Amino acid sequence: MTEKVALREVGMRDGLQSLAPIITTEQKNAWCAAEFAAGVREIEVTSFVPAKLLPMFADAEDVVRHALSLPGLKVSALIPNLRGAERGVALGVKEVAHVLSVSEGHNQNNVRRSTQDSIDDLKRVIELRDSLEPGRRINVIAGLATVFGCTIEGDVDEKRVLKIAGKVLALKPDALMLADTVGYGNPAAIRRVFREVLDMAGSIPVAAHFHNTRGLGLANLLAALEVGVRGFDASLGGLGGCPWAPGATGNIVMEDTAFMLEAMGFDTGIDLDRLIEVRRMVEGFMPGITFHGDLPKAGIPKNYARRLAA
Amino acid sequence: MTEKVALREVGMRDGLQSLAPIITTEQKNAWCAAEFAAGVREIEVTSFVPAKLLPMFADAEDVVRHALSLPGLKVSALIPNLRGAERGVALGVKEVAHVLSVSEGHNQNNVRRSTQDSIDDLKRVIELRDSLEPGRRINVIAGLATVFGCTIEGDVDEKRVLKIAGKVLALKPDALMLADTVGYGNPAAIRRVFREVLDMAGSIPVAAHFHNTRGLGLANLLAALEVGVRGFDASLGGLGGCPWAPGATGNIVMEDTAFMLEAMGFDTGIDLDRLIEVRRMVEGFMPGITFHGDLPKAGIPKNYARRLAA
Repeated sequence: MTEKVALREVGMRDGLQSLAPIITTEQKNAWCAAEFAAGVREIEVTSFVPAKLLPMFADAEDVVRHALSLPGLKVSALIPNLRGAERGVALGVKEVAHVLSVSEGHNQNNVRRSTQDSIDDLKRVIELRDSLEPGRRINVIAGLATVFGCTIEGDVDEKRVLKIAGKVLALKPDALMLADTVGYGNPAAIRRVFREVLDMAGSIPVAAHFHNTRGLGLANLLAALEVGVRGFDASLGGLGGCPWAPGATGNIVMEDTAFMLEAMGFDTGIDLDRLIEVRRMVEGFMPGITFHGDLPKAGIPKNYARRLAA
Repeated sequence: MTEKVALREVGMRDGLQSLAPIITTEQKNAWCAAEFAAGVREIEVTSFVPAKLLPMFADAEDVVRHALSLPGLKVSALIPNLRGAERGVALGVKEVAHVLSVSEGHNQNNVRRSTQDSIDDLKRVIELRDSLEPGRRINVIAGLATVFGCTIEGDVDEKRVLKIAGKVLALKPDALMLADTVGYGNPAAIRRVFREVLDMAGSIPVAAHFHNTRGLGLANLLAALEVGVRGFDASLGGLGGCPWAPGATGNIVMEDTAFMLEAMGFDTGIDLDRLIEVRRMVEGFMPGITFHGDLPKAGIPKNYARRLAA
């Protein structure tokens, strides 16, 4: 009776999006296949943005096609708008993630439109989903960014978070995802906001996307876990943020996250030894890029297997 | 009505103990004074081990004398045995920390005697404390190491932890400190063990000493905080472990820890801006040594002050 926690790998998208095309399509596919083999069952493999904006994702179609060949992998892609969702549907992805910022300033900066315009855009994506025949049905993850603060606006009013979460939930996404995009969150705020939003969401799952910008990533995850969240984004080596800028840490580290959850007795489905091998391989693909995380350096504790068996 | 959490700086001892004497007495004193000025009120400034074993602490007397000149600072020192406690008393320290390992193998390795012999040694230290006239009274912190696992023995039986905690509590130390010496702990184990030990300890405070070896330091702190622990060790820049070995992370990082607690609304008494200045200064003293922590790199969030005022 082990409780499951789902970890969604976002390094292939969030980790790579700020980089020039430094790894090949074959390397991306090897990463995806190896992490799938290590037990990860949900991977955001690419972003359907125009290649001229993010050349790293010019191979989106090839990467998706390869990922769809892995049986049982939930292949996810970030979409900036309805056009991106249509590309996803045409390819047969199982899941698209649409993200809008609760902070008006951040949304304007990021996608050059108001938060309300982005909500309307999400509505069109969900209408597309509902128009598909059952066999081609996709899941739509509705992501809310800057939920715990914003580098442009500073504080983000929690009442505004709840109001936007309510509007988005009313559209009936398949999941809601709250993101601490810039690492401003702390366990107290996270507990408070997730508790409210989980209560509003009813049967719609609520997941979390945390960055480790100020070292609080796993403490924040623990806080969300405690109020009932069972789905988290993480990235191999904590890729994300801006890996070229020394000190800018990215997403929470998949390796450390999986270790913590497994050591606590949750079932992530992930084989830590194999996951660490995937990290070594992907590190080899990207010389010069900093990979974060402490488990891979310190090693799996001697008491790990026994604790699992107990 | 802000709740207080006490952070004890251990970097001057745990951080330096594995190093050759690379910083001068004057630099240590500058560190101590600056961190006191940043609001830290309890600092383990040295270790009373023979200088031939740890040459870094040959200046223990000078460092203690300087620290005692800072009004309101609780000057703490690690002692290996009764002889160390006597040196502390002679100098006028306010607090000595005596540490024994719950793991028999670790205790043998560390101090070449059985855990029971170390408990007997602690008893003599406490008898010394009780023999002092009221004006010279010292506090004795009884530290238990390897509470959550051991690199030599692997698992450490929680029943053994409770039994040894009980024996030690019966000696009436001024505080009990449970340490995850090798970073094997996880939030579930920490919650479970601290809950039991807090219940046993009654009015004797129970503090925690965590290492960030596998990245779980702050999540573990959060777990202990939630069951009622209000005193934690931390070190500037996460110094500790073995700073010469790449990848061996040390104690939890004082900067990130203070940030998390303050952001959550706890009062640590620490001014984060000044603390970050102390870090920059001490980093300057030790070129080549890796300083950990993400807050100093990412900066204090824009919404920080406002959250405190709220």
